[in-house]
Amino acid sequence: MVAAIAGVQSSALGEAIVRRINELAAISESPDYLTRIFLTREHRAAADLILTWMREAGMRAHLDAIGNVCARYEGERPDLPCLMLGSHYDTVRDAGKWDGPLGLITAISCVADLRRRGKRLPFAVEVVGFADEEGVRYSSTLLGSRAVAGTFDRRVLDARDKDGISMREALTRFGLNPDRIGTAARTRGELLAYVELHIEQGPVLEAEGLPVGVVSAIAGATRLTARLTGMAGHAGTVPMALRRDALTGAAECIGMVEELCRADEDGLVGTVGCIDAEPGAANVIPGQASFTIDMRAPTDVHRQRAVTAMMRRIEAIAARRELSLQLDVTHENRTAPCAPWLTAQIAEAVAGEGFRVFELPSGAGHDGMAMIDVADIGMVVVRCRGGISHNPSEHVDTADADAGARVLLRLIENFRPRGG
Amino acid sequence: MVAAIAGVQSSALGEAIVRRINELAAISESPDYLTRIFLTREHRAAADLILTWMREAGMRAHLDAIGNVCARYEGERPDLPCLMLGSHYDTVRDAGKWDGPLGLITAISCVADLRRRGKRLPFAVEVVGFADEEGVRYSSTLLGSRAVAGTFDRRVLDARDKDGISMREALTRFGLNPDRIGTAARTRGELLAYVELHIEQGPVLEAEGLPVGVVSAIAGATRLTARLTGMAGHAGTVPMALRRDALTGAAECIGMVEELCRADEDGLVGTVGCIDAEPGAANVIPGQASFTIDMRAPTDVHRQRAVTAMMRRIEAIAARRELSLQLDVTHENRTAPCAPWLTAQIAEAVAGEGFRVFELPSGAGHDGMAMIDVADIGMVVVRCRGGISHNPSEHVDTADADAGARVLLRLIENFRPRGG
Repeated sequence: MVAAIAGVQSSALGEAIVRRINELAAISESPDYLTRIFLTREHRAAADLILTWMREAGMRAHLDAIGNVCARYEGERPDLPCLMLGSHYDTVRDAGKWDGPLGLITAISCVADLRRRGKRLPFAVEVVGFADEEGVRYSSTLLGSRAVAGTFDRRVLDARDKDGISMREALTRFGLNPDRIGTAARTRGELLAYVELHIEQGPVLEAEGLPVGVVSAIAGATRLTARLTGMAGHAGTVPMALRRDALTGAAECIGMVEELCRADEDGLVGTVGCIDAEPGAANVIPGQASFTIDMRAPTDVHRQRAVTAMMRRIEAIAARRELSLQLDVTHENRTAPCAPWLTAQIAEAVAGEGFRVFELPSGAGHDGMAMIDVADIGMVVVRCRGGISHNPSEHVDTADADAGARVLLRLIENFRPRGG
Repeated sequence: MVAAIAGVQSSALGEAIVRRINELAAISESPDYLTRIFLTREHRAAADLILTWMREAGMRAHLDAIGNVCARYEGERPDLPCLMLGSHYDTVRDAGKWDGPLGLITAISCVADLRRRGKRLPFAVEVVGFADEEGVRYSSTLLGSRAVAGTFDRRVLDARDKDGISMREALTRFGLNPDRIGTAARTRGELLAYVELHIEQGPVLEAEGLPVGVVSAIAGATRLTARLTGMAGHAGTVPMALRRDALTGAAECIGMVEELCRADEDGLVGTVGCIDAEPGAANVIPGQASFTIDMRAPTDVHRQRAVTAMMRRIEAIAARRELSLQLDVTHENRTAPCAPWLTAQIAEAVAGEGFRVFELPSGAGHDGMAMIDVADIGMVVVRCRGGISHNPSEHVDTADADAGARVLLRLIENFRPRGG
C-alpha cells in the first residue's frame, strides 16, 4: 500500500522535474543553443539557481572549492553519514538539456518530497551537482567528482582553455580559491553510497520498452589510434596486385573490429569514429590512413582481452598487406562496477514501482567513475528517445522522468547501508 | 645493320635528353620545387626554351592560340601529311620533371637526329608541346590537345582560377587571342597518326624488368562519390546490434571494391582515395560516411560492366545495413584505344631495339585521349623508378630515356602510314 501511495504522491514529480529541466536549460552561452561550460558566467548563474532549489528543498547548500553545488538534508539526528545523490550541471556544446540535470533535479525533487512529508531518515541525504563532468573546457573530464573523491590532479590547474585562460585563473574569476580544492574532498566514512540517476544516452531501454534500467557497471574504455602506411600511387597505373593501399588496410581493420564486437555476447562494443586517408585525392591510392578505435566492455578483464585480440588482428592485417603500423593506446578508463548490494536495492525499487528489472552496463562515462574511489556506487538510467544524447534533440518523456523519480524516491526511503 | 647503326648513333640521345629535362625543370614557380602552371610567367619561359630547341632541331616552330608549342620538320617535299609526336609541358604542383617533358624532349631530339643525318622522310614530322594537360589551374584537363583536336569547349574560357582570373584573361596576358583558339585545330587529313612517349607513372615495367612498353589503350575512368547515412550515436551506449554505423558500411564497400578488382583478370583497377566520417569524434558512431571511387579498365565495356556491378553491391550493402545511400557518377572518361596498326609498328621498333615487346594499358590519362578525335593514336611508355609520379622523386634512368628515344627514332624512320 505504501508503494501505491508513494506512486501517487510522486506522480507530480515528473512534471515539476521537466519544468526545472527547461528552466535550467534557459541558462546558456546563447539563447539559440544550450552550451554551459565550466566556470563561465552561465555556469555560475546555473549554480545559483540550483542552490536556490536546494535550499527550497530544505537543504543546507553551498558551492565547494571546484564549483560543485553541494547540499545536505539531515537525517534523524545531525552528523549521520549520508547517502549521496548527484549528477553534473555542465554541458557539452550544443547539448541536450537532460544529460546531467535530470539526475540532479530529480535528486533535489526527491528530497523536497521527503521534506514536504516531514520525513527524516536514519542517514543524511546529500545532493551534489558536479561542476564539470564533460571536460569540454580543459579536455579533462570528471573534475567535479574527482575533487569530491579526493583524486583531483592539481596539475590540471595549469591547463589552459582555447582562449589561453588557465583553470586556476578561471576558478579565481568565478570567485573560488584554487588552493582550497582539497577542501572539497570527502572521506569514505562520510558516505554510505553514491547513487546517480542519468539518462541512458543509448537505445537499449527504448528497445526493451522500459522507462528505467539498473546499471551493472560503468564500462571502462580503451581508446587507440592506428596509423597504417603503405605506398601512395596513381589510381590508374598501379595494378591491384602491386598496391600497398593504406585505406583498404584500414577498411579491413574497421570490418574486423565490428565483427569482433558483434561476435561477443557480453556487451563488448567497438567504434571507429575518425578516419583520414592521405594524400586524399580521388585519383591517388592512399599511402597513409589513420583511424581511432574506442572499445568498451562491462569488465576490465573482458575489455583488455578484447583490445589485445584486436591489436593482434590489426598487426596481422598490416603484416599481410605489407603496411607499416603505428598503434597507440591514447586513453584508458577502468570499469567502475556498481556495488551489488546497492544494485539489489535499486532493483527492488524498480520492481516496487511495477517495472521489470533490467540490468545493463552504462557505456557512457559518469561521475561514478570518480566517486568509486570514495564510495560504493549505484546508478539508475532513464529511457531517452532514440538513444540520442549530446544533441539538442535529446528527449525524455515526462512519464519516464516521473518513473525515474519514483524509483529514486523509493530507493532513498528504503535505503539500508551496506550490511545494515 | 641499319638497326645497329641507329642504336649506336642515338646512344648519346639519352644523355642529351636528361640534360634538357634538367634545364626545363629549372623553369618553375619556385626554385625549391617544380610547379609550372598553364599561362604563368614560367610557363611562357618554358615555351620559349622549347621553341628554341625546336628551331635548333631544324623545325619551323610557333606558339599556337592556346599556348601549345608546335613545330614541323618537312618531309621529302612540302605540305605532306605529318606523323605528330608530342606530350605536355605543364606540370602538377610539386611535380616530377619527367611527366610530359620526357616525351616532348625525346621527340625534338629524334628530329634533331634526323636532321643531323640530313634524313628526310616521305611524310612530315611534327612535334607538339601541349600547354595544359594536367588541368591544375582551371580544373579542366587536356586543354592543349583538345584545341588541336578541335574539341576545345569555349565555355572553359570563362572558368576562373583560384585568384579569380578567367582563362580568357590569362590567355590575353600571356599574349594570345582567346578568340583565335579555333585556329589551333588540325584536320584528320593533316595527321597520319599521333604518337606519344611518356613515363609509365606506374610500377609494371619495373616489375617486368623492361625499359619500355607498348600501350594498348588509355584506360577510361569512371569516378563516383558515395555517401552513406546511418545514425550517429554514443560509442559506449549503443549495442552493436542496434547500430547503423555509416563508416563500417563504407569500410565494407571499400573492401568490396578491392575484392571485385582483385578478382578481375583484365586490368580492372578501383581506388577509394578520399574518405570522411561525420561527426568525426573518437567516441561517436559515425552517422555519415562519404568516399570517392575511381574505376578504370582497358575497355569501356569492361569498365562500365564493373561499375554497374559495383554499384549494385554498394546498394546491397547499404540496404542490408539500413543505411541510406547517395551514389553519384561525378566524372567519366571513355577509353582511348591505341590503333592496332600503329601499336604493331611500335612493337616492331621495340623488338628492333632488342627489347621484349610488352603491351600494357595506360591507367593514367594522356593527351591521346583528346587527340583520338583527330588521329589514330599510339603510345610508348618508359619505366620510371618505383612507379612514382606526380612527386619530386619521379625518376627515369638515363639508359631508359635512351631506350625510349631509340624506340621512337626507329619508329619514325620505319613509319608507314595506315594501309601504306
